[in-house]
Amino acid sequence: MGPITAISWAPSGAVRIVDQQLLPDAWRERDLEDAAAVVQAIRALQVRGAPLIGIAAAMGLVAGLREQRSAARDAFLTRQTELEALLGAARPTAVNLAWALARMRCVAQATSGDGRALWERLRAEADAILEEDRAMCRRIGAAGLPLIGAGASVLTHCNAGALATGGIGTALAPIYLAHEHGRAVGVYVTETRPVLQGARLAAWELTRAGIPCTVIVDSAAAALLREHRVQLVIVGADRIAANGDFANKIGTYGLALLARHHGVPFYCAAPSSTIDSNLENGADIPIEQRPTEEVTHVAGRRVAPESAQVWNPAFDVTPASLVTGYVTDQGLVRPPFRPTA
Amino acid sequence: MGPITAISWAPSGAVRIVDQQLLPDAWRERDLEDAAAVVQAIRALQVRGAPLIGIAAAMGLVAGLREQRSAARDAFLTRQTELEALLGAARPTAVNLAWALARMRCVAQATSGDGRALWERLRAEADAILEEDRAMCRRIGAAGLPLIGAGASVLTHCNAGALATGGIGTALAPIYLAHEHGRAVGVYVTETRPVLQGARLAAWELTRAGIPCTVIVDSAAAALLREHRVQLVIVGADRIAANGDFANKIGTYGLALLARHHGVPFYCAAPSSTIDSNLENGADIPIEQRPTEEVTHVAGRRVAPESAQVWNPAFDVTPASLVTGYVTDQGLVRPPFRPTA
Repeated sequence: MGPITAISWAPSGAVRIVDQQLLPDAWRERDLEDAAAVVQAIRALQVRGAPLIGIAAAMGLVAGLREQRSAARDAFLTRQTELEALLGAARPTAVNLAWALARMRCVAQATSGDGRALWERLRAEADAILEEDRAMCRRIGAAGLPLIGAGASVLTHCNAGALATGGIGTALAPIYLAHEHGRAVGVYVTETRPVLQGARLAAWELTRAGIPCTVIVDSAAAALLREHRVQLVIVGADRIAANGDFANKIGTYGLALLARHHGVPFYCAAPSSTIDSNLENGADIPIEQRPTEEVTHVAGRRVAPESAQVWNPAFDVTPASLVTGYVTDQGLVRPPFRPTA
Repeated sequence: MGPITAISWAPSGAVRIVDQQLLPDAWRERDLEDAAAVVQAIRALQVRGAPLIGIAAAMGLVAGLREQRSAARDAFLTRQTELEALLGAARPTAVNLAWALARMRCVAQATSGDGRALWERLRAEADAILEEDRAMCRRIGAAGLPLIGAGASVLTHCNAGALATGGIGTALAPIYLAHEHGRAVGVYVTETRPVLQGARLAAWELTRAGIPCTVIVDSAAAALLREHRVQLVIVGADRIAANGDFANKIGTYGLALLARHHGVPFYCAAPSSTIDSNLENGADIPIEQRPTEEVTHVAGRRVAPESAQVWNPAFDVTPASLVTGYVTDQGLVRPPFRPTA
């Protein structure tokens, strides 16, 4: 069985997603009929992963503009601007969201005609974003494939797989390709508290594809690295600054430091859409603070006393100096990082 | 309100514990009537923490030998040996368990008389172990107090507090004393997956005592340290080898590396009973592998697919080279570590 498909069009023209909050317990698709529903699904982490939320934003814009197909040009563009603002504020850290919406804006401005023509063009552009992401995932996989020799054991964090993209993932793409090539490959995945995307999503999609996967608690990574149980670490990214610093799921920075200390190569895999050339370095990447309940409650049960406070940044920033290489759709890029997008 | 009491004698002579698996939801005391019940409670982590399981083993031996009070000397000692084997196999990593049982054995051998006399002597020795632990906790607190200035912010991992000892804890003892001295002190605690002793126990007992506590997911420690939100890290220990290497809750080793990288002092707090002079270094400390369910299930709900494997070491070993100082009942010991016990 190959990697799963995380996003598609519903027959109604809605955005069809897999509700990732219910995995691995249940596979339930949801049809998001308008932009507000897409924003809600992104905020609730039903759809997550930097590339995927970029795609979801573009598709959500199209779904939300269906009603404007008979509108005049100005009314259509005004509504597009409103929905862009709505969608653009869904989550702050992944730049793919702003990137996809800016691309949709440029396309609309460059297209003549009324609502119908504009909408058709935007729909085609959302399809292009989805298809390009799919293709970029394969190219990322090809770029990273030489890193995954037969018998390799890889550590990853969070989920940067098929469930985070329109295709076969970013960090997991080289692993899927190695598996396709018949190479025995094993993956260790950190469970990735607080939302457990590693245990719930990465372990699920990997084992579903027939790739052996071992889950560890996040804090076991140091012992794992010391025992030389993995030959490399690959993670995804939510935003890469011009100098190669990148934001990714909380814990990535610590993993990078631990990998460096133990002499284990550390790779960041991401498509061009994740690069933010406007930011000189990682210090300027906005870091989302998530609700305290993600930490105080697990599976609906309170695990920390009400009297305790919580600090819950969803991401941290890994400096480029800790990165062995960037696995991108442009190939394997060794530092110093220079954006090509 | 002061720190709570984690262990005591029930009127029946059973070992009375607080069921730590139910905290912070519920405060329920359990009376463990025999050695088998104590073993079960230790294995199920209803009673945990290296000093506390040493105390529980000594007290459980006494509770289990109540029936032998009218036995002849030989029969009594034979039964003691059986119960020692039972209790000694409860968990492998914390040396306090073996230490307490060896001490009880020596005392019995040095005592003349029959079952009644031996039992009375053992009961007094278990009391002494409990009282000495209580006193050692206060001395550890005093030794660490100078580290906790007014306004200090401290990071700790797991629970090395009152719930882990017979007294006010080890790692948390200096914090309790600083609070007693009227110093404003704040604690960041890692939630400590898989069993969440940080979120469930440390945050609970600290805030109950009026000490502000902020819970973070384990993997947020690196970002916390980089932001200089804490001035020092203090953790407990389950076994300290002769060279100062020590085993503690999984994740401690990574924290020590991250603290070193960020120039944050890293302290290990423990009583003499945690030192194992027989082991030259940390490589020889046996590391307990815990059940996979601790990782695959949270609060009774499955979070990792059945198809995934799990690696779940309960402890890791931190080399002495990463330790700024040992906060012990003998004072603050700077490396190189030399056991005084």
